[in-house]
Amino acid sequence: MTAPAVPDAPGAPGLSGEGPTATSGPVHVIGSGLLGASLGMALTRRGVEVTLEDISPLNVGVAADLGAGRARAQGDPEPALVVVAVPPDMAGGVVVRALRDYPGAVVTDVASVKSAVLQDVHDAGADLTRYVGSHPMAGRERSGPAAALPDLFEGRPWVIVDSGASAETALLRVRDVAVDVGAQVFHMDAASHDKAVALVSHVPQVVSSLMAGVLAEADDRALALAGGGLRDVTRIAASDPALWAVILLGNAGPVAGLLRGVRDGLDQALAALDQAAAGSLGEPMAALHRLIAAGNEGVARIPGKHGGAHVDWDEVTVMVPDEPGALGRLFTLIGDIGLNLEDVNIEHAGGKPVGLTTIYVAKGAGAEAAAALAGAGWRILA
Amino acid sequence: MTAPAVPDAPGAPGLSGEGPTATSGPVHVIGSGLLGASLGMALTRRGVEVTLEDISPLNVGVAADLGAGRARAQGDPEPALVVVAVPPDMAGGVVVRALRDYPGAVVTDVASVKSAVLQDVHDAGADLTRYVGSHPMAGRERSGPAAALPDLFEGRPWVIVDSGASAETALLRVRDVAVDVGAQVFHMDAASHDKAVALVSHVPQVVSSLMAGVLAEADDRALALAGGGLRDVTRIAASDPALWAVILLGNAGPVAGLLRGVRDGLDQALAALDQAAAGSLGEPMAALHRLIAAGNEGVARIPGKHGGAHVDWDEVTVMVPDEPGALGRLFTLIGDIGLNLEDVNIEHAGGKPVGLTTIYVAKGAGAEAAAALAGAGWRILA
Repeated sequence: MTAPAVPDAPGAPGLSGEGPTATSGPVHVIGSGLLGASLGMALTRRGVEVTLEDISPLNVGVAADLGAGRARAQGDPEPALVVVAVPPDMAGGVVVRALRDYPGAVVTDVASVKSAVLQDVHDAGADLTRYVGSHPMAGRERSGPAAALPDLFEGRPWVIVDSGASAETALLRVRDVAVDVGAQVFHMDAASHDKAVALVSHVPQVVSSLMAGVLAEADDRALALAGGGLRDVTRIAASDPALWAVILLGNAGPVAGLLRGVRDGLDQALAALDQAAAGSLGEPMAALHRLIAAGNEGVARIPGKHGGAHVDWDEVTVMVPDEPGALGRLFTLIGDIGLNLEDVNIEHAGGKPVGLTTIYVAKGAGAEAAAALAGAGWRILA
Repeated sequence: MTAPAVPDAPGAPGLSGEGPTATSGPVHVIGSGLLGASLGMALTRRGVEVTLEDISPLNVGVAADLGAGRARAQGDPEPALVVVAVPPDMAGGVVVRALRDYPGAVVTDVASVKSAVLQDVHDAGADLTRYVGSHPMAGRERSGPAAALPDLFEGRPWVIVDSGASAETALLRVRDVAVDVGAQVFHMDAASHDKAVALVSHVPQVVSSLMAGVLAEADDRALALAGGGLRDVTRIAASDPALWAVILLGNAGPVAGLLRGVRDGLDQALAALDQAAAGSLGEPMAALHRLIAAGNEGVARIPGKHGGAHVDWDEVTVMVPDEPGALGRLFTLIGDIGLNLEDVNIEHAGGKPVGLTTIYVAKGAGAEAAAALAGAGWRILA
């Protein structure tokens, strides 16, 4: 069963993954959750034959109905590539079984931790030349095949991890899939990958959850004062506990190493605050200044922050009043005057989209955009 | 000097603070930075006479030029209200001086910590009946009078703090100013205020800065994998070290109390990770699950989060491809078909506004909006 081709309406957006397709199937996807079903949809749409397997027949049925492929049947030819898309703690075992069951296939897995999976494959004495680790860094708040999207990997990082013995043909077969579905490829060894995701994903998750945990017992009146800062810091604290317990367990060493650095900083902050509460000023002031300044330095290193990717755009900041429909009127006007937005940042006061909205337009187009909006009565901020 | 009235163009947004004005001046604002100048502009625009004072004559000049009022002169009548808008560590002393210099005036300050200021005023034996603490919770990334906005307080919380002996007329005079400039008034005692802002503002700042501090020494290749989660957690880590060192020192007790709770949680997480690294599974898994689940509970208590204020809207999620102008075309279309947006949430992949964009429309309008966008060729997500 092949998903119907989606005809692009005139003027509709194309997808960067819609050039030529290098992957030739069949691709067998084990695990029909969000990632497996999304990958199946993306490859099927590009004309690649995809077969599906899951411990839940319902998941396979849903994924197949959504155009992710068809259930694998007796007598099907051996796949060229097997993609293992099961939870991280099961990935190693399923990779080992796939390497054994399909002795001519390249096997990859999409688990978000890589050393533990590689260790399992290594310890089982499986054929490391045909195994390549993958980590497509794509996700949604929802999980399961019903949340799958053929575009899920579009523009997202996809880390490819050499087993240490991966054949070049195996590495290229996995790279082709990543590029075919629109992802941006990074090559790392397993240890570097695990340290990197501890830094950019796992430790931020723990820190956000710890902060949000403090709110559980807080006073309602205090929480009514919450602003955008608290909201930002705690947004990812809404993540799934079962999934995250497995991820953190699977990357315990690197996560603990970085968290110890956080705790050292926290202990210094506490020492400074305790000295201050006891009446001392100079040393605590210097310590707290260092803490915030170190954060300035760190946040400036994240690519694509304001001052990063946004440096090539003009920004226009508009005051959006607290009244029904205000934001809608602003965007209607932006559409009417044909402003080509590169990005939008909406501040929220008290949970409402009121206050400062910043739009980003091409370099040089800011003054004209500001004048057009001001001419229609909107307040533009310096 | 009065700022020219800004005529509202037809169909332009009004401001909720533009009803009748209760405040009758003169209001004297001491400190012409972001908050002082913004308040001066907001009151001047409403026809209230505002005088200005600052240790920097340049600041007074800039603020006056922007329509925040005029420099206070010899022979001016005594103000009805003095607003002290200086850094938190200086606020107490300036309040005491203002209470002495203007024996008929009500005096308030806008410092973000309240117990320390009240203590200074109390210790100086000043007239507590005429003193009321304020904390307008408004700010921008930029500071100084040049960044001032007459709308800065629009829709923002403004906490009013009784000195313990504040006269009712004094409390009402400050409340009138807050309501006149469009803020949402909360009444708290100084200790409750300081605990509340430790929770919603000061501790999140420390946590965000600690997380960002870990990035200062990180590998560039690891940082290239940064996604929206890390960006959100560390956004406020870009805050001003000098200002924040003063704020944290001024609220050391409550901040340290809450941070100790964060450290306890962090120690539990570290213990679980260390056990896991040593091969244990059951207890670490349960502990990490509890950590993330407690964060779920806490974040759900923040008013106005998704599931909070957004529960009354329909949401439509659109796939924005990674190509120039894609987001602009989406908003142009939204304007063309007259969709009335209540809010917009744009995901960023690799720092670019590509991926999932969610628009919020009135309850019941979601299906039609989705159909209209899909009809124009956009991919709408389930």
